[in-house]
Parts: sequence; structure tokens; C-alpha cells
Amino acid sequence: MKSCVEACLACYTACLDCATESIKMSDEAMLNCIQTCLDCAELCNLCARFCATDSDYSAKICAMCAELCDACAAECEKHDHEHCQECARACRECAEECAVMA
Amino acid sequence: MKSCVEACLACYTACLDCATESIKMSDEAMLNCIQTCLDCAELCNLCARFCATDSDYSAKICAMCAELCDACAAECEKHDHEHCQECARACRECAEECAVMA
Amino acid sequence: MKSCVEACLACYTACLDCATESIKMSDEAMLNCIQTCLDCAELCNLCARFCATDSDYSAKICAMCAELCDACAAECEKHDHEHCQECARACRECAEECAVMA
Amino acid sequence: MKSCVEACLACYTACLDCATESIKMSDEAMLNCIQTCLDCAELCNLCARFCATDSDYSAKICAMCAELCDACAAECEKHDHEHCQECARACRECAEECAVMA
Repeated sequence: MKSCVEACLACYTACLDCATESIKMSDEAMLNCIQTCLDCAELCNLCARFCATDSDYSAKICAMCAELCDACAAECEKHDHEHCQECARACRECAEECAVMA
Repeated sequence: MKSCVEACLACYTACLDCATESIKMSDEAMLNCIQTCLDCAELCNLCARFCATDSDYSAKICAMCAELCDACAAECEKHDHEHCQECARACRECAEECAVMA
Repeated sequence: MKSCVEACLACYTACLDCATESIKMSDEAMLNCIQTCLDCAELCNLCARFCATDSDYSAKICAMCAELCDACAAECEKHDHEHCQECARACRECAEECAVMA
Repeated sequence: MKSCVEACLACYTACLDCATESIKMSDEAMLNCIQTCLDCAELCNLCARFCATDSDYSAKICAMCAELCDACAAECEKHDHEHCQECARACRECAEECAVMA
């Protein structure tokens, strides 16, 4: 069991590393958008969990989430793609909600 | 609290969607590598969790994880980049460990 | 950087193990409910991600998610607590949606 | 697809809520340990991801992770169970590594 957990976590980091390096070969124009959106997705997911479980740390995570959501919105607002504009709107709304909780 | 959870999850899916669409604009050559690595990373992470907590569903998740790790290895073996070769090795090892647990 | 990743993942598994063992000391009556709900939460979260990113593996994850959601609903339906009844309803709805995708 | 994502995320939060409420019925003595360990596990997992992908936000997440790891160690050091002592050690090590990165 323990060796399976270790192999899974080693594979997890190797896959993250490979995806990260391959994404860096992407078109310069969208690179920052991809990286910021992936970070923002993860932090929003954790923030939802901490709020849903009424964690003692939810206010601190909300404060950081509000900051990252605003940064992600600022990045996505630069791009005319519909999915970027949609993402920017969701980020601004989430930043507002998180700021209230923080 | 509830509206913050909802805003975070809405932002989570909007960010995932934006990242996914932006990644699709990447160089064709690396697109499949990025998508498969991101999927494999997530499933390995879940598999590690189910094994670490001795879940009743760990065998089933291990079976699916072994399959996805082999597919990810096959994809990454096509690319000469060091991070792809490293990822392929970690995937093959994880597939073996997971097959034992499945 | 690498040693920080390793320390974080070692701490992640130690915390999961500690929580799992401490949960096992819980009241027998709710133990299965807690474990199944935590498993179901994780798999639903992964399933949402795979569907949102239109992964090649979303159908397979949906099939497993439908199965676990039905098992979680069956467990939670045994308990009269409002949060258990609410959870059972969400699980049945999710199982139906996932069965369509599978 | 969209309705499946929504059903999965609704089920995710319902399962988290049910697990959280059921855990609150646990023995008072271990309640804080369980909650802190679950929070710490999640934040360590996110911190590993942000470090592994060399995120612009890894230093900030490391700072928060160091704080939560120290709090989790302080809680687990109160309990004589082997898994609590083991967890406390992993938390102290992780807090040190994260403090270096922060």
C-alpha cells in the first residue's frame, strides 16, 4: 500500500512537471493566461472546500483567493476570447465574495 | 458562506474551461501530452489519497489509474524532452504498483 | 524546491493517515457515513474536473462516480440527520447525471 | 456535460457538509485533531502543486502552509497515538521547508 501511495505521488509530480514544461512551449500570448487560470482554479477549489467545511482557516484562504482571482481577471481581460471574458467575470465575482469572507 | 462556496466553484469551472481552451491553442505536437499529463496527475493524486486512507474503492481507482498511467507513458515516450522521458518512467512504475493493488 | 514538494507530500499523507485513524475512533454509527462521504466528495470533485475539461477519461470516471454516489446515497439514507438526507438526495441526482455521461 | 459538472459539484459540497457534520458528532477529544489534519492535508497538497509547477504564488502558499503545519503539529503533539506523533513530526518538517520557501 505504502509503495503504491509513493509511486502515485511520484507520478503526480512527474506529470505536473511534464505538463508545466510542455505548457511553457505554448504560444507566448496565452502562456500567462494558462498558468494563472490553473493556479486560480486550484485555489478556488481549496477555498470552496475550506468554506464548505467552515474551516478555521477559511478567512485567510479567502483573502489569498480574492487576490489571485483579481490577478487572474486582470490577465484574462487582456484577451478577447469568449472563454477569457467569461473567466474574467467569474473571477471578479469570486474576488468580491471572498473579500467579504476575508 | 454558501454564496462564497458557489462563487468559488463557478470560478473554478470558468478557470478550468479557460485554461483548457487556451491549451488547445498550443502547438499541436504537445497538446495531447499536456492534456494526458494533467489528467494523469489528477487521477494519481486521487489514487494516492484512496490508498492512503485505505478506501473501499482503492482497488477500482488503482485499476483505472494503471490504465491512464500506461496511456500517459505511451504518449510521453513519443517525445524526446527530458521531462517527457522522466514522466514516462514515473508513469510505468506507477502503473505497475497500481496493477498490483487492483 | 524539490525538498519542499517532498515534505509537503509526506505531510499530506501523514495528515490523511492521522485523520483516517482518528475518524476510526468515532462513534461506530457514523463511521461508514464519514468515510463514504469523504470518498464520494473526492471522486465527485475529480469527475467535475474531467467533465469540465472534456477529458477522454470522463466517461469512465462518470461510471465509477455513479456507482460511488449510489453507495453513498444508500448509506446516508439510513440516517435521519438533515445533512444525511440532503447528501443522499445530491448523491442520487449526481448518480443519474453521471450514468447519462458514462 | 454542464449539468453533470453542476451535479458533481453540488454532490461534492453536500458530501463535504455531511462528513463535516458527522465528524462533529465524534469524540470531543479527537475532533480538533481530525479537522486540523484534514485542513492541513489539503493545504499541503495545494502547496506541493504550486511548488512543483513553480507558481508565482508558491511563496505565499508556503507561508500559509508553514503556519497551518505548525498549528497541526501543536494539536497532534497533544495525543499519544503513534499516528498523531508521526503526523506531528511530518508537520514540523514541512513547516521548516515551507518557511525557507516563503
